[in-house]
Amino acid sequence: MDDYILDLNRENRIGFPEVIFWANKSSERLRRIFDDYEVLGKNALATRVQPEKAAVLLEAYPDSRYDDTSQSFVLHLNELASTKANIGIINAGSSDLPAVNEACFTLNFLETPATRINDVGVAGIHRLLDRLDELRMFKILVVVAGFEGALPSVVGGLLPQPIIAVPTSVGYRAAQSGRTALNAMLSSCANGIAVTNIDNGYGAAMAAFRILKQTGKDIVKQ
Amino acid sequence: MDDYILDLNRENRIGFPEVIFWANKSSERLRRIFDDYEVLGKNALATRVQPEKAAVLLEAYPDSRYDDTSQSFVLHLNELASTKANIGIINAGSSDLPAVNEACFTLNFLETPATRINDVGVAGIHRLLDRLDELRMFKILVVVAGFEGALPSVVGGLLPQPIIAVPTSVGYRAAQSGRTALNAMLSSCANGIAVTNIDNGYGAAMAAFRILKQTGKDIVKQ
Amino acid sequence: MDDYILDLNRENRIGFPEVIFWANKSSERLRRIFDDYEVLGKNALATRVQPEKAAVLLEAYPDSRYDDTSQSFVLHLNELASTKANIGIINAGSSDLPAVNEACFTLNFLETPATRINDVGVAGIHRLLDRLDELRMFKILVVVAGFEGALPSVVGGLLPQPIIAVPTSVGYRAAQSGRTALNAMLSSCANGIAVTNIDNGYGAAMAAFRILKQTGKDIVKQ
Amino acid sequence: MDDYILDLNRENRIGFPEVIFWANKSSERLRRIFDDYEVLGKNALATRVQPEKAAVLLEAYPDSRYDDTSQSFVLHLNELASTKANIGIINAGSSDLPAVNEACFTLNFLETPATRINDVGVAGIHRLLDRLDELRMFKILVVVAGFEGALPSVVGGLLPQPIIAVPTSVGYRAAQSGRTALNAMLSSCANGIAVTNIDNGYGAAMAAFRILKQTGKDIVKQ
Amino acid sequence: MDDYILDLNRENRIGFPEVIFWANKSSERLRRIFDDYEVLGKNALATRVQPEKAAVLLEAYPDSRYDDTSQSFVLHLNELASTKANIGIINAGSSDLPAVNEACFTLNFLETPATRINDVGVAGIHRLLDRLDELRMFKILVVVAGFEGALPSVVGGLLPQPIIAVPTSVGYRAAQSGRTALNAMLSSCANGIAVTNIDNGYGAAMAAFRILKQTGKDIVKQ
Amino acid sequence: MDDYILDLNRENRIGFPEVIFWANKSSERLRRIFDDYEVLGKNALATRVQPEKAAVLLEAYPDSRYDDTSQSFVLHLNELASTKANIGIINAGSSDLPAVNEACFTLNFLETPATRINDVGVAGIHRLLDRLDELRMFKILVVVAGFEGALPSVVGGLLPQPIIAVPTSVGYRAAQSGRTALNAMLSSCANGIAVTNIDNGYGAAMAAFRILKQTGKDIVKQ
Amino acid sequence: MDDYILDLNRENRIGFPEVIFWANKSSERLRRIFDDYEVLGKNALATRVQPEKAAVLLEAYPDSRYDDTSQSFVLHLNELASTKANIGIINAGSSDLPAVNEACFTLNFLETPATRINDVGVAGIHRLLDRLDELRMFKILVVVAGFEGALPSVVGGLLPQPIIAVPTSVGYRAAQSGRTALNAMLSSCANGIAVTNIDNGYGAAMAAFRILKQTGKDIVKQ
Amino acid sequence: MDDYILDLNRENRIGFPEVIFWANKSSERLRRIFDDYEVLGKNALATRVQPEKAAVLLEAYPDSRYDDTSQSFVLHLNELASTKANIGIINAGSSDLPAVNEACFTLNFLETPATRINDVGVAGIHRLLDRLDELRMFKILVVVAGFEGALPSVVGGLLPQPIIAVPTSVGYRAAQSGRTALNAMLSSCANGIAVTNIDNGYGAAMAAFRILKQTGKDIVKQ
Repeated sequence: MDDYILDLNRENRIGFPEVIFWANKSSERLRRIFDDYEVLGKNALATRVQPEKAAVLLEAYPDSRYDDTSQSFVLHLNELASTKANIGIINAGSSDLPAVNEACFTLNFLETPATRINDVGVAGIHRLLDRLDELRMFKILVVVAGFEGALPSVVGGLLPQPIIAVPTSVGYRAAQSGRTALNAMLSSCANGIAVTNIDNGYGAAMAAFRILKQTGKDIVKQ
Repeated sequence: MDDYILDLNRENRIGFPEVIFWANKSSERLRRIFDDYEVLGKNALATRVQPEKAAVLLEAYPDSRYDDTSQSFVLHLNELASTKANIGIINAGSSDLPAVNEACFTLNFLETPATRINDVGVAGIHRLLDRLDELRMFKILVVVAGFEGALPSVVGGLLPQPIIAVPTSVGYRAAQSGRTALNAMLSSCANGIAVTNIDNGYGAAMAAFRILKQTGKDIVKQ
Repeated sequence: MDDYILDLNRENRIGFPEVIFWANKSSERLRRIFDDYEVLGKNALATRVQPEKAAVLLEAYPDSRYDDTSQSFVLHLNELASTKANIGIINAGSSDLPAVNEACFTLNFLETPATRINDVGVAGIHRLLDRLDELRMFKILVVVAGFEGALPSVVGGLLPQPIIAVPTSVGYRAAQSGRTALNAMLSSCANGIAVTNIDNGYGAAMAAFRILKQTGKDIVKQ
Repeated sequence: MDDYILDLNRENRIGFPEVIFWANKSSERLRRIFDDYEVLGKNALATRVQPEKAAVLLEAYPDSRYDDTSQSFVLHLNELASTKANIGIINAGSSDLPAVNEACFTLNFLETPATRINDVGVAGIHRLLDRLDELRMFKILVVVAGFEGALPSVVGGLLPQPIIAVPTSVGYRAAQSGRTALNAMLSSCANGIAVTNIDNGYGAAMAAFRILKQTGKDIVKQ
Repeated sequence: MDDYILDLNRENRIGFPEVIFWANKSSERLRRIFDDYEVLGKNALATRVQPEKAAVLLEAYPDSRYDDTSQSFVLHLNELASTKANIGIINAGSSDLPAVNEACFTLNFLETPATRINDVGVAGIHRLLDRLDELRMFKILVVVAGFEGALPSVVGGLLPQPIIAVPTSVGYRAAQSGRTALNAMLSSCANGIAVTNIDNGYGAAMAAFRILKQTGKDIVKQ
Repeated sequence: MDDYILDLNRENRIGFPEVIFWANKSSERLRRIFDDYEVLGKNALATRVQPEKAAVLLEAYPDSRYDDTSQSFVLHLNELASTKANIGIINAGSSDLPAVNEACFTLNFLETPATRINDVGVAGIHRLLDRLDELRMFKILVVVAGFEGALPSVVGGLLPQPIIAVPTSVGYRAAQSGRTALNAMLSSCANGIAVTNIDNGYGAAMAAFRILKQTGKDIVKQ
Repeated sequence: MDDYILDLNRENRIGFPEVIFWANKSSERLRRIFDDYEVLGKNALATRVQPEKAAVLLEAYPDSRYDDTSQSFVLHLNELASTKANIGIINAGSSDLPAVNEACFTLNFLETPATRINDVGVAGIHRLLDRLDELRMFKILVVVAGFEGALPSVVGGLLPQPIIAVPTSVGYRAAQSGRTALNAMLSSCANGIAVTNIDNGYGAAMAAFRILKQTGKDIVKQ
Repeated sequence: MDDYILDLNRENRIGFPEVIFWANKSSERLRRIFDDYEVLGKNALATRVQPEKAAVLLEAYPDSRYDDTSQSFVLHLNELASTKANIGIINAGSSDLPAVNEACFTLNFLETPATRINDVGVAGIHRLLDRLDELRMFKILVVVAGFEGALPSVVGGLLPQPIIAVPTSVGYRAAQSGRTALNAMLSSCANGIAVTNIDNGYGAAMAAFRILKQTGKDIVKQ
């Protein structure tokens, strides 16, 4: 008897499929769930898959793809047109890449292209200012930062788009594993910043996807 | 000499005007700022204005309007077509009205109609389920709740739109003046919930407005 | 000389035997305690037994049983009539199974059958609504949930039985290893929810057992 | 137009009526809600009513009753047989009376008698030990304590009944307005203690009532 | 008999006189301390003096000066050359003025001129960028900000001087009365930011003064 | 060159020698410090020595003694008259033994006998009550408890001696690794309980020793 | 009927009488309790009595005495020989006087003289060093400090007596209303510091009294 | 394609080069960054490099140097005149050496000599008092301490220089991994103490360097 129940109706109900939060599931249960999705002819995404579990799965599903930075596992990686992304994912520094990549993988799973804008943290503000014209092109901005989490405030004061802010667990002690960045983003003096949980690239991607569907923009698969 | 500087260029830059956070400003400074806006022929919104300060301002500006539930003060209330709202503001109970009204007043200031859906908290879940068809009509949902802050999770599992969740400082001790609801919303098992600061109806309205502008929907002034 | 004292009188005093909290006891002391119980002809339950210690014990006591999901160890597993359970243990998702199984093992030790209702979390509320008739049959409901901990609020608004809510340490950062779910359950807008410590399936089983003894229901051993 | 919706169906659904959480509602709204209940011929209970608001209501409803210790307001006080109480409400000291009285008033509203056992805190443990025979007579024990919140642990080690523990916000600084007692009760070394929010006499009464209904005991109205 | 002891030797020891922290001292004790300083022919500064106590003192010492924004009281205000300030005090917005003014009054008491740069918060970053040449002229920068506390990070990435960061208790709930800004400044991704307690304009002035004395710059009294 | 300085004068100054807090010191530095003490003909105690480091030291100093429960290491174990202890160390359960043993080893190092009273936690209060006559014999009581930390309150209400309470990091989640017991002991409704840091058996022993020296009691070495 | 029970046996049991914690008791109940003590011919002490309640009591009991700094109320002030105090109460600054005076009043109530050593905080360490000979005369030291709470560490490194450390709620924001001083004292690098709750002068006096009784020192009433 | 961007302009902008925060970067990326610096003929410093990664780098860059106490890695160690240091780094005990060494390595990288003053913690205050003349010689004092973090308060009351306080994560439970020392330093009763993040020797060095550049002191390379 199975001790899980797939929510296969979710896509009809809210427009995107269930995703598997994998943190403390056993390898054996993971395989059973994945097999179910294969039988249904559906793609599947699992987040927070430890490397040793991913190794087992990669062998079982040769077409699957694992990103070790974000610990994301996807059954079939979509090929998307990178030139027409509506979502820009801005990050403060390369330590933020786990959350950035989780967002990218999730959007790929949703067949939605996204573009990464790396290393534009506030300690070298000119790096951000130099790229404002490029940033104005996106429909939605996902802004990822750790330490003091100041980047969304600066972006929010310069650009008019919807902003999804993602705090990351990067920084020394007073950074409190991301709680300082989280509280800073919630307290932003810029207007209309919406925030996700710490390191939650997956949730930010989902929030951006909810918005994108309302804008009527085509989601361009290559 | 003035000890404040209006950011009059903000509207050109990011598409909406500066709003005045008034908490600990003196009555005398408030008057000077308001006069500046009047001279410029612009409307102005101030949030968190204590009743005794509002009384002074109401006398000075006879056309102005004060909402004592949310402590919002607006120089000129816009008349908007209530029948065509793209934004639905769902709340769990009448104790949440301060944040709800702050959101409504802010959207009015931005000439954007919104509709309130009151008293649909999770302790009587049928009240929400009975109104799903109505809720599907909105482009964006703002979901306001205190206590355990569970409402956005339920809404997010039932409806596909962008969801801006607003925790409120309502509830007994373990509710921690809204921090429990805040953390609950950030930890939601539903996908793609974006969250604002506690009681921040103003920020939720701004986040919704950023989204609405991207959807190409007309903002209908009566 | 022994550095522990068994509280063998507890069963007479309050109606259920002592249980062993094993977290940081050495393997050697565990063996001595278990032997004492065997000599007394009593069954024994130990909670939070790490797998490597359990392996040693399983070899020593061939009839014993270890559940690795909840890390519970019982000297003799009782056979109970599963069809007549008075206690329903509802959980939000399969990540909650450690606490669920700890509750089940404890109730088995107390010769009390229980039924698990899996995977009915609030992000897919229909899964719960579909099973309300089944849930009405139980005398007592134990409701187990992590993340935002909203499930007891929804259950408490729909059903009249005593509800023991168990927060679990499941979820990303703002879930705070279960403190968010704990505070949410304590702050529930539903009425009369009683709460245990985080992940405390054992305590929930004991609380349910205290109640069940007052209802005069037979405890049915197969 | 009303900005609240009474949940009049709640009694059918879960067996007890809605109660009004009144903290920040205006006097004017309170009156309207109360009038609705009067028209329906139903009794009503409101908790956390500040004295100045209570004074207004007492004048409007001459038969109503206000308890200033717990700030509870009830439209019609029930007369109950005090000699046959199934619920014992134990408290550590007279500083805990606000929560104790809130529980008593709520149970009166539910037409359920209760008995108070005062001033049996752990700093004078003999006061509790002297009354064990009396305490064994109750079906359910509600245990209320502030400071270090140790009373439920001692009671739980001595008596077999269901125990609902209520931490109170009594004590100096490290008592943290009740959080220390709350955490202590959740961490109790006694078995099967179920806990409510801080100062939540109302919730404890509701939890006890849920249990009492399952025991088949008559609820004796005088 | 006096129950206080003036530390009159402090100036010889560390180069600046004792300052009076006045929060919960009685009016009567304040007068006695002030009289002692008058007799000694020394100037005196008291911080956090409530307005009602200040009114009494202003009457007693006609030459004294009280700043109600920062609640600072000084026996004799020094006249300083405002054109040659070595210390720049940058603030994010006018809500930060209590801490800014406390720093200014303290520096005045130390006969050290300072210049305020107002309203250059990160939500309108151009306001800061426009004044970089002016800011490069100072020997030391004191940077004061509430909400998310991002300003010192941006300043620290653009300018080479010593930076004393002062978090303020300005902002909504998640700002945590300044703790968010404090943690953000301690976690800054910019290098070499030194931080004071929340709202501690006095401490920042003292830290700046310690530095200034090492630079050999003249302290210019008009 | 050495990067540490022994405080050899401490014994003259305050009556007891320096003790080595060893947590993150390297094995190599440990050896050098111990050799210095050997050369000086003094005994030495080190606390919190990890087992792998202790193994190295035990080989180097054949007369030394290591207690793996408390991770205490002493160069020469004193032989003390166990029959004349002035200090009683009461503990709630065997999970508290690390702190209990650290206290015992420290007192042995100070040539002061102590007696352990095990397993008298509040969930079985009779175990404590049965031994009150024995407990009245001690000059000082050290009371060690984890979970809800209630034991010092009960002891303090029954016995008149000085009480040093030691919270331990034992218990599930809401026990917060000892903070709950710490706050409970600080908030005790019993009078005159003095508290040490969590798990700080060493500090409790030192506090007891400071008291014992004032009582004029002989410290009896066998 | 009375809703309180005096613990008149406490003095026989543990050697000192019950004291009344008065924070939220009504004036009317206070009077009844006091009258009971008068009838019994016993002295009584109440702590944390607000000034307006004290005024009522002072009128009712003309021989009583109220200390408004510590808000202590005593029925009959004892006259004690100030020249032979065994307990020294050291404080960092005059802001600590509420806790200092509470300790003094409590010791007076216990007919035990004490001496105050004022204003010897660590920012002017010589003030403490100058008085070491005087401090060596006491049997017990109570050390009271707010802000960073460093004074007990310095005293504990210089003097051998038992030290009861009392943190006070004095200081700006990061002082956290005394929690910083509390944690600092618990974490002291000095040995054998025992700590009470924040501002708990009463508890410190009781702890000192427990010790003093063991030393066999006469308690000298004038 | 590279996923990092060096901020090579930083030295021109603020006078010191970028430093690499290395915590969760992969070995492979570290090598690429280091090679870039080598090609540019620049020295490079990386902080928080785990030993196993350092081993790989030491092999690749034979002239490099790794300090395992502070986990700092520098490409080329500068030879500096140790006799002319303007910066004194005071520490409370040898457990603080990780932060002390990080500060020293960073200052070496900036070609700035510094002197360490070890083991002068407040529990043996005479060790500090004995060296005051030596300490007066420095232009800037960096003060490093864990446990209760009292050292900067004592130093700040005795010496007039700029003081950068560094809390360390040393101490038992209530030390809260450095938060207690951090809060204590921020709450210091001494004047003008500026504070860095916990264990942040790097930040303290940078803050000291910002100050030193303003004093016009030569930075003396041997």
